[in-house]
Amino acid sequence: MFFASDNAGPAHPKVMEALIAANQGYAMGYGADPIMDQVRSQIRDIFEAPEAAVYLIINGTAANSVLLGTMTQPWQTIFCADCAHIHEDECNAPEFYTQAKLTLVPTQDGKMSPDALRSRISGEENRGVHGPQRGPLSITQTSEKGTLYSLDEIGALTAVASEYGLKTHMDGARFANALVTLDCSPAEMTWKAGIDTLSFGGTKNGAMGVEACVIFDPELAWEFELRRKRGGHLLSKHRFLSAQMQAYLADGLWLDMARAANTRCTQLAAGLRDHNTAQMLFAPQANIIFFQMPRAEHKRMLDGGAVYYVMDGNPEEGDPQELLTGRLVTDWSMTEKGVAQFLDLLRS
Amino acid sequence: MFFASDNAGPAHPKVMEALIAANQGYAMGYGADPIMDQVRSQIRDIFEAPEAAVYLIINGTAANSVLLGTMTQPWQTIFCADCAHIHEDECNAPEFYTQAKLTLVPTQDGKMSPDALRSRISGEENRGVHGPQRGPLSITQTSEKGTLYSLDEIGALTAVASEYGLKTHMDGARFANALVTLDCSPAEMTWKAGIDTLSFGGTKNGAMGVEACVIFDPELAWEFELRRKRGGHLLSKHRFLSAQMQAYLADGLWLDMARAANTRCTQLAAGLRDHNTAQMLFAPQANIIFFQMPRAEHKRMLDGGAVYYVMDGNPEEGDPQELLTGRLVTDWSMTEKGVAQFLDLLRS
Amino acid sequence: MFFASDNAGPAHPKVMEALIAANQGYAMGYGADPIMDQVRSQIRDIFEAPEAAVYLIINGTAANSVLLGTMTQPWQTIFCADCAHIHEDECNAPEFYTQAKLTLVPTQDGKMSPDALRSRISGEENRGVHGPQRGPLSITQTSEKGTLYSLDEIGALTAVASEYGLKTHMDGARFANALVTLDCSPAEMTWKAGIDTLSFGGTKNGAMGVEACVIFDPELAWEFELRRKRGGHLLSKHRFLSAQMQAYLADGLWLDMARAANTRCTQLAAGLRDHNTAQMLFAPQANIIFFQMPRAEHKRMLDGGAVYYVMDGNPEEGDPQELLTGRLVTDWSMTEKGVAQFLDLLRS
Amino acid sequence: MFFASDNAGPAHPKVMEALIAANQGYAMGYGADPIMDQVRSQIRDIFEAPEAAVYLIINGTAANSVLLGTMTQPWQTIFCADCAHIHEDECNAPEFYTQAKLTLVPTQDGKMSPDALRSRISGEENRGVHGPQRGPLSITQTSEKGTLYSLDEIGALTAVASEYGLKTHMDGARFANALVTLDCSPAEMTWKAGIDTLSFGGTKNGAMGVEACVIFDPELAWEFELRRKRGGHLLSKHRFLSAQMQAYLADGLWLDMARAANTRCTQLAAGLRDHNTAQMLFAPQANIIFFQMPRAEHKRMLDGGAVYYVMDGNPEEGDPQELLTGRLVTDWSMTEKGVAQFLDLLRS
Repeated sequence: MFFASDNAGPAHPKVMEALIAANQGYAMGYGADPIMDQVRSQIRDIFEAPEAAVYLIINGTAANSVLLGTMTQPWQTIFCADCAHIHEDECNAPEFYTQAKLTLVPTQDGKMSPDALRSRISGEENRGVHGPQRGPLSITQTSEKGTLYSLDEIGALTAVASEYGLKTHMDGARFANALVTLDCSPAEMTWKAGIDTLSFGGTKNGAMGVEACVIFDPELAWEFELRRKRGGHLLSKHRFLSAQMQAYLADGLWLDMARAANTRCTQLAAGLRDHNTAQMLFAPQANIIFFQMPRAEHKRMLDGGAVYYVMDGNPEEGDPQELLTGRLVTDWSMTEKGVAQFLDLLRS
Repeated sequence: MFFASDNAGPAHPKVMEALIAANQGYAMGYGADPIMDQVRSQIRDIFEAPEAAVYLIINGTAANSVLLGTMTQPWQTIFCADCAHIHEDECNAPEFYTQAKLTLVPTQDGKMSPDALRSRISGEENRGVHGPQRGPLSITQTSEKGTLYSLDEIGALTAVASEYGLKTHMDGARFANALVTLDCSPAEMTWKAGIDTLSFGGTKNGAMGVEACVIFDPELAWEFELRRKRGGHLLSKHRFLSAQMQAYLADGLWLDMARAANTRCTQLAAGLRDHNTAQMLFAPQANIIFFQMPRAEHKRMLDGGAVYYVMDGNPEEGDPQELLTGRLVTDWSMTEKGVAQFLDLLRS
Repeated sequence: MFFASDNAGPAHPKVMEALIAANQGYAMGYGADPIMDQVRSQIRDIFEAPEAAVYLIINGTAANSVLLGTMTQPWQTIFCADCAHIHEDECNAPEFYTQAKLTLVPTQDGKMSPDALRSRISGEENRGVHGPQRGPLSITQTSEKGTLYSLDEIGALTAVASEYGLKTHMDGARFANALVTLDCSPAEMTWKAGIDTLSFGGTKNGAMGVEACVIFDPELAWEFELRRKRGGHLLSKHRFLSAQMQAYLADGLWLDMARAANTRCTQLAAGLRDHNTAQMLFAPQANIIFFQMPRAEHKRMLDGGAVYYVMDGNPEEGDPQELLTGRLVTDWSMTEKGVAQFLDLLRS
Repeated sequence: MFFASDNAGPAHPKVMEALIAANQGYAMGYGADPIMDQVRSQIRDIFEAPEAAVYLIINGTAANSVLLGTMTQPWQTIFCADCAHIHEDECNAPEFYTQAKLTLVPTQDGKMSPDALRSRISGEENRGVHGPQRGPLSITQTSEKGTLYSLDEIGALTAVASEYGLKTHMDGARFANALVTLDCSPAEMTWKAGIDTLSFGGTKNGAMGVEACVIFDPELAWEFELRRKRGGHLLSKHRFLSAQMQAYLADGLWLDMARAANTRCTQLAAGLRDHNTAQMLFAPQANIIFFQMPRAEHKRMLDGGAVYYVMDGNPEEGDPQELLTGRLVTDWSMTEKGVAQFLDLLRS
């Protein structure tokens, strides 16, 4: 009953086997390993983007920060959701790598609307050198609240950015979970919808620790490489990043794992809907659920062995009837039985 | 015949097995995994430093940069060897993390002398706010040239730093290789000799990709944690760093691997000494050899399948008799036969 | 009829005379001039703060940025009003000097309430290293909207900061204008109300270009000096900053100038109140007025020779009846007749 | 007998009168004042560079740092003399503004040779992303040692930079002193010799506090403006920078002042040559002299009322016969009689 985070689960055995397989003899370091050539081809194929620059990096904070560093000037401001991971959960890493600032766009259900975005962008009106200059847009898909932008919604946001000449980054830490729900192609969810760069998540979806940075405009590639190295994010024994990603993408493993995680989430959501004290805040579309329940109920669940975060208060102390928000995250390794056990406990 | 770098070799099978073993079910992320508790104890025991703060990070550039960031103010200058890895091979990562500058101390055989260090420190004389302020000292052991500081030499350098109230960092990317040659304890080579923080290498000595940052003064620990996160260097699935380090340290594996690498280096050196056209620049003490040979000879070796770097010229083009410097690095996985093959080729 | 900004007006003749007087022979540079000794004493006396560290700097952006840099760690967030000058008008200078970020507190009439502040501070709840850490509070007095915090309001805000162990900076670009309205002592409006550091404005109130940075806790002084120098903000011929500030403070000139500016503002406000098409947004308390008027009326005023900023639209283009917001700023040099001329034009 | 620095002397009365004259009524701020239009024209005329971008800033550290920031990427290294002001006397301001590092080129008599420069540039050989990337060259004319690069020497250095595709900055804090000695045109000493950007000094040569940043390639202009603002270096009451520079340049005042300073230096040098205990280290070519003399003699001079810096030891303590180096700097305001008084004291 471990629903704390999809980055607390295990890596897929095929990913681990690939590490073992890659550990043969010598290999050129720093991305010059032959497995990386395969990965580059895999990603270019999957994204129908034969010119894209592709790099691997250890985690999502690094992927977001180095990509945004490459896209942003220090006197600019990055437009992002007010609940964006780059704002809330990276201890100023984006500011460190960009030397810039973030402008928060209000959200509903974790998502920016084109109007809210336009209002914030136009709010940074032309005041010459005095105000921050407009920088790129960053969209998180799957959003931090577990909701999804439709293809049209992504296109509408990037269109607003584009009106002002701004590029768009996608934080795709849970890219696969969104993709299998929307049932579209990776190209449709990215460059065909106006996305310029992508943090393509692996870690939360069954890898050990690897993300791809996909840059659809290869002109930025060399600067990305320098910024990655300068951030201490270029691995010498790079083959072990390559091997993970290679196995992750092979035979659609990444999609299978995302489907599995989403299926468990659907099962959970169905159970919660049937339950009269738990109230989901948004319709879950990927592998995350936010739900409200009285403190006493949260306490009962946690005491009973369920593991998840209560976001807005201490489940141990305070009015037992106060509604608190819990977050449940599913991953590829979860079983139908495990989820049923959680729901049984809830109903008990 | 792959002598290009010890970070191009394979990880030890025990390290890989530990990864597989760690991949069971859920584990708290970000360093809260139980294996990390073991690693912390192992390192505190090995270093006889029960209070030391211990963190894991993916590579040496990150270890050096985050540690130096924690020790340095942006208006200071870091004293280091003119051939230091932090100066030459990290694409300004130390400057990025510290916002400071480096003052290069002249070296002989890759090593600073106390007099040269004192001269540089006192050269940053008191000019109030105008000049850079004196910051920490950074020593590389094993040095970038494959030579070693004796315990007395380390103590003499840290004593100079200490006179000026400066702390000392040790870049120990090849810490184990030095330790087995000096045949001393980890404590003697570090805090007993005046070292305040250590980048304790694993990657070049048989790990997949992990270094420990050891902070002997735990007051700096919290700032280190924030700086690591802000640099994008805190891993969610941290157990896979912990597992590597746990296996690396268990049963003295790390020392065995260093001894193996050094033994191969000794074998190589003996062969080079017997050879009349190759001239070693320094007596190798760990697992690195720098040697001079005519360009034609380098070309012959490389064409014959030897892999190593020629540091100061193109082996393919130019006067065949010009002396060029080659670098040979051995690692734990090298066989006696492999080295013999190289020496046979050299003699042929 | 020049109401565009108080930093577009002339310096007071006494300030300019002081420059001439200071230009005699040689003087030690970089703040070691004897006039600076006088200034330090003047400010310590005026603020009843005999231990305060006092420095001069050329403008408000520099004063705010270097002070905040001294108070803030790179992994923190600074709490400030959503309309704060440090957020809107300094092209990321505070981010540059602090390497941190800003958290915007919603305002009413340009002012934060203690509740809004508390909500934002507690919103940066304890998430270990993941979120930005809580940093200092910055309050602007006179606010960017021309309104004032009462002494109680300042105290209530700093009390909230203090609960969380946070320090408070005051952006006092228009400090004098607030002081003469509140009719309190400089100590009451600062350290007695919990302010730790102050950007004490001179430029907008009749100096040529000088602000004092007042640090009530002298422990931060040396770091401030290093940060000022590193920002390129330490002047060699410093006596010309000292002389301005000396004359500005002598015989209460600074208070006289602020009173003069405020009096003109009161005159303007009275005229606007009598006028049926102009609507003031807030009760002006210092030397700034924000007012709404139909576009056509703005256009008529600007065509008639009035100079001021229309903040939220182009006065030349669009629906003539749309209400647009104008900003009027008065300064010490403005005459009763000049203001009357503006009001006459408005009524004509 | 004040020879400590040319930035300790007074401003020229004409500069001060210009400040008074500029202090009439309102003027648009931030560089939009009409006097700035004149200054721009003056500098474009003087440099025969009708397209040059021209900006004013308060001091040399700021001029150098913002210009270098505009020319340098954070992963590069700036090539400069080992005695360069940007290295020794700016408390890491260039590193702050560029986020990059400096590579020190050895000098003789304060000057880099083309060979030494080439050796350092080629020393940063191509190691992909691992090493710092090559960035701009910075030349100081008049050098920090008071010597001059001939036009051919400047051209030879910029030619080396150009071979590697690198731009060149000139730190011209004492530009005028060099110009009048070389008796060439400003264009010849800058863009005709391959200089791309110039810190054009005013402060050390009779201004109150102003330098021009001249950018011969106007494509960099907008970035410079943003960086200047972000550094807190854009003045609101900018007319007072403009007025200084306007008066400084009018009727060749700047050249007259430089000639006066150099003439006093020549007088001093002649006196020192006649004196048997003082030994000049380099032939002075502008307004700076470095000379060696026994400690006891320095002490006698300083006790007798001469003011200058002893660079390499305490004149009060130590072996009276030890040779110490003094630095003498002359400025426009010095009289023949004042210099004679110093020489009399020396001879007495």
